[in-house]
Amino acid sequence: MKYIIIGAVAGGASTAARLRRLDEHAEIIIFERGAYISYANCGLPYYIGNVITERNKLFVQTAAAFNTRFNIDVRVRTEVISIDAEHKTITATNLETGETYREVYDKLVLSPGAEPLRPPIPGINNEGIFTLRNVTDTDTIKKFVTTTKAKKAIVVGAGFIGLEMAENFHHLGMDVSVVEMGNQILAPVDYPIAAIVQQHMRSKGIYLHLNTAVTGFSKENDILKVTLKNGNQLEADIVILSIGVRPDTKLAVSANLTLGPANGIWVNEFMQTSNKDIYAVGDAIEFTNPITQQSMITYLAGPANKQGRICANNIVLGNKQSYKGAINNAIVKVFDMTVGTAGTAAKHLAAANIPYVVSTTHNGSHAGYYPNAKQMSIQIAFSPADGRLYSAQIAGYEGVDKRLDILAGIIKNNGTIEDLMEFEHAYAPPYSSAKDPVNMAGFVADNIMQKRLSVFYWNETTNIPPTALLIDVRRPDEFEKGNIQHAINIPVDELRNRLNEIPTNTPIYIYCEAGLRGYLAHRILKQNGFNEVFNLSGGYYLWQSCTAEQQLLDM
Amino acid sequence: MKYIIIGAVAGGASTAARLRRLDEHAEIIIFERGAYISYANCGLPYYIGNVITERNKLFVQTAAAFNTRFNIDVRVRTEVISIDAEHKTITATNLETGETYREVYDKLVLSPGAEPLRPPIPGINNEGIFTLRNVTDTDTIKKFVTTTKAKKAIVVGAGFIGLEMAENFHHLGMDVSVVEMGNQILAPVDYPIAAIVQQHMRSKGIYLHLNTAVTGFSKENDILKVTLKNGNQLEADIVILSIGVRPDTKLAVSANLTLGPANGIWVNEFMQTSNKDIYAVGDAIEFTNPITQQSMITYLAGPANKQGRICANNIVLGNKQSYKGAINNAIVKVFDMTVGTAGTAAKHLAAANIPYVVSTTHNGSHAGYYPNAKQMSIQIAFSPADGRLYSAQIAGYEGVDKRLDILAGIIKNNGTIEDLMEFEHAYAPPYSSAKDPVNMAGFVADNIMQKRLSVFYWNETTNIPPTALLIDVRRPDEFEKGNIQHAINIPVDELRNRLNEIPTNTPIYIYCEAGLRGYLAHRILKQNGFNEVFNLSGGYYLWQSCTAEQQLLDM
Repeated sequence: MKYIIIGAVAGGASTAARLRRLDEHAEIIIFERGAYISYANCGLPYYIGNVITERNKLFVQTAAAFNTRFNIDVRVRTEVISIDAEHKTITATNLETGETYREVYDKLVLSPGAEPLRPPIPGINNEGIFTLRNVTDTDTIKKFVTTTKAKKAIVVGAGFIGLEMAENFHHLGMDVSVVEMGNQILAPVDYPIAAIVQQHMRSKGIYLHLNTAVTGFSKENDILKVTLKNGNQLEADIVILSIGVRPDTKLAVSANLTLGPANGIWVNEFMQTSNKDIYAVGDAIEFTNPITQQSMITYLAGPANKQGRICANNIVLGNKQSYKGAINNAIVKVFDMTVGTAGTAAKHLAAANIPYVVSTTHNGSHAGYYPNAKQMSIQIAFSPADGRLYSAQIAGYEGVDKRLDILAGIIKNNGTIEDLMEFEHAYAPPYSSAKDPVNMAGFVADNIMQKRLSVFYWNETTNIPPTALLIDVRRPDEFEKGNIQHAINIPVDELRNRLNEIPTNTPIYIYCEAGLRGYLAHRILKQNGFNEVFNLSGGYYLWQSCTAEQQLLDM
Repeated sequence: MKYIIIGAVAGGASTAARLRRLDEHAEIIIFERGAYISYANCGLPYYIGNVITERNKLFVQTAAAFNTRFNIDVRVRTEVISIDAEHKTITATNLETGETYREVYDKLVLSPGAEPLRPPIPGINNEGIFTLRNVTDTDTIKKFVTTTKAKKAIVVGAGFIGLEMAENFHHLGMDVSVVEMGNQILAPVDYPIAAIVQQHMRSKGIYLHLNTAVTGFSKENDILKVTLKNGNQLEADIVILSIGVRPDTKLAVSANLTLGPANGIWVNEFMQTSNKDIYAVGDAIEFTNPITQQSMITYLAGPANKQGRICANNIVLGNKQSYKGAINNAIVKVFDMTVGTAGTAAKHLAAANIPYVVSTTHNGSHAGYYPNAKQMSIQIAFSPADGRLYSAQIAGYEGVDKRLDILAGIIKNNGTIEDLMEFEHAYAPPYSSAKDPVNMAGFVADNIMQKRLSVFYWNETTNIPPTALLIDVRRPDEFEKGNIQHAINIPVDELRNRLNEIPTNTPIYIYCEAGLRGYLAHRILKQNGFNEVFNLSGGYYLWQSCTAEQQLLDM
């Protein structure tokens, strides 16, 4: 058998290595347009930021070592320019020599990845404006920063890579601005979680320009001028474009392979394209989202690697192993914080007309009595009908990745909030509390499901009718430091003795700092004849972050 | 309704608070024999070790605050001495005044906990020999250490609390020895994982005396002499007995409640005892282990808290919510390491006659190219018939708690190694690798299940027949630093060119450092006509830890 693989990073390299382990005697050729194979794609921003100090750490495998270990013919700097699916051949060009030649295959695997968007904005080709996709880009950016002694950076696009670049430029001592067309950073997460992270970025001195686009670039005296749609003009020594990526489907199109509704390469559950001898993996393929049932593309290394293994198994052993899709479990470090998301965000559930309920809870990363516990905020969205967990988003400082992975496991399993309540975590003081933040998220959601708790949300505080009562149930010293307009202060511990101060015939809106005391107050009132009582989901902490960010947007 | 709860720590306090939230108008009394309620049981060793520096941090709730917030009648230093189940009354004694009185109840909840074992060893009542269960014990131990300026400590029993005490005494600058009757620390985990942690403890200067018991204590000139069964005599200023605990079932017996085969209080799935008006939660109850189907008692705070909530729900809302049992997901910090276990250990599967296969893998806590990745060792046991995951045990430095919780979720869900392979984790360089250690454990187990990989184990190296060949496939520099007796060295990258050196008619045993290169070598040989090939599970690293500890045991 002769296997050809196009693309030698995450998905392609995984496929090739697995093919060899399954079939010692096959001929395996892997083509890579770039100069390097199997490099640490996700580490590139950190190498630019000198967090990763040794360049050779970026290479998981070199072409030579890969060849030695796996007996695979690795051809770097060689671009496959077309596929003749009928005759099962590919045509490749050696980018060093210009030589063009054909190779036949028995089975072909496409792992072309995605390419960064570079929209036709005036002046976008000025020197100092970069995209970041591979090692060559990385070397170019690092050299530019070093030789020009760049002091001011602008990152356009506040997605995962954009935020990593912002942090790494800041780590180099640069002045960093982020420009983002959306009204928040990190499009995959919902606004409240993004707002918490935005507040943190501002506290680190990052300038966020949200809700505006770049309309033009120009260069004067080695300074890049970046004009924004809102009329502002920023200056920079370097600009990184991290606006997004799109699947690289040129070759697939040349082979007449079917593309799907999301414009990725269509594959069946066995990673097989519309041509039975061509398989595809990674950022260029699309599949059905297990929650929305809509086609989607996932630009994540984890799924690509898993697809590579499944693809190789199916090629050698016959189509037996199904890929079950990804729920887009993704995470990013943003200075001292970690933020992550799994499943389908509330806004995307809304767009897909899937009914959902949102609940936000704040709990400690580990037992409060053990040193250095930090608060994390968990927002979940779930089905009001059966409690199925649709998504989880977390922002915090420690232990965010753990809770995100636990919740992702439940989402992937079609689990419900009952699974959150019952989750049996490992508890010792340095690692968790007797009730883990995952359990707490489940308990609160269950109270909502069982109608023991009615909640309202941060963006509804402005809609509270004037006849209603807004009660802050925190301590007076907390109330004094800041509160929501029109609120009166009745601490939860005094509530039972002050019921006579509260009118029974009006809706009552309650809040505390995180939500727990508000819930207790809610229970006391509901069982004392107050019928319409609502507790602020996520409490004052979430309201304050969201409101502060909203006001900055409106300015 | 009038609810009485006996015991005001984890399970009891959770039940009481939940009862109040569900029923604002009930009368709720909670009795606690000790002076404190709802304290941080699991934090006590860390307060002794000055890791937790403020004593008041140990109190999650005080009696007064609990009363104010939840309107619950908290009676500390009051022991319930008997239950008259027929007339639904209890008799209590105020330990301060000696007053004895009765209270009637509608529903009674028992949360008596467990008491530390204190076997009748000669001299056990000498001053300076302590058990640790509650705040009073903690205060006594801390005062003793401070006033006597204790320099040498002996911890008897190497369970979770024993190891925490060893670490905390060491943290205070003391010389620490641990005496353990078993041939390893941490009875719930299997030997290889324990061996890794034992090596770490020895590297920190802890003296481990395994496989021996204490036969007597004596005191001479303020020095405690501890005589061991193996003839050795140790000296200490302080001794902590952490031999184990047993459920406190005195009251349950006095009420004629049924005990189960494990001598805990029998409860049904609704936490209801054999008397319909008496419920029970926490360390004193027993239930069916979901893997072995045998009765067991779990001494963990997490399950106790969850039981408390379920118990209260069932009391107020009717028996509707089932408790599904615990898989004993437990974790402990041991100096720089973390070790944890979930599910049923291999040795306990063997004892229960459940067929299983074990596999051990070592992987980085996060991407190797990002700073400070640390190796962790994951041992899983699974069903050879259907791949069901029975247990996971992990020893490592970073990210152990995360992987343990992920694996615990799979075990609890009756998941299989397919779930390990497919687990979609959140990957960014500071948190994981593109293939998480959980995925890697699944991949290797799947290779074993699919008969693509045959393994042998560290304790089988001495049984390799003399006619067989043992090949170390690491690099020569690794081989030179230490290897297994009789091994020859053929690095994996040279193997394809040196096949002629290997006889085809003999069994071949392969090992590398962690297992991956050995697996590659195994695949090459199997597909080149070598029929009997085995790879060392856990590699040289695991073999070396286990063998070193075994030799120390045999000395």
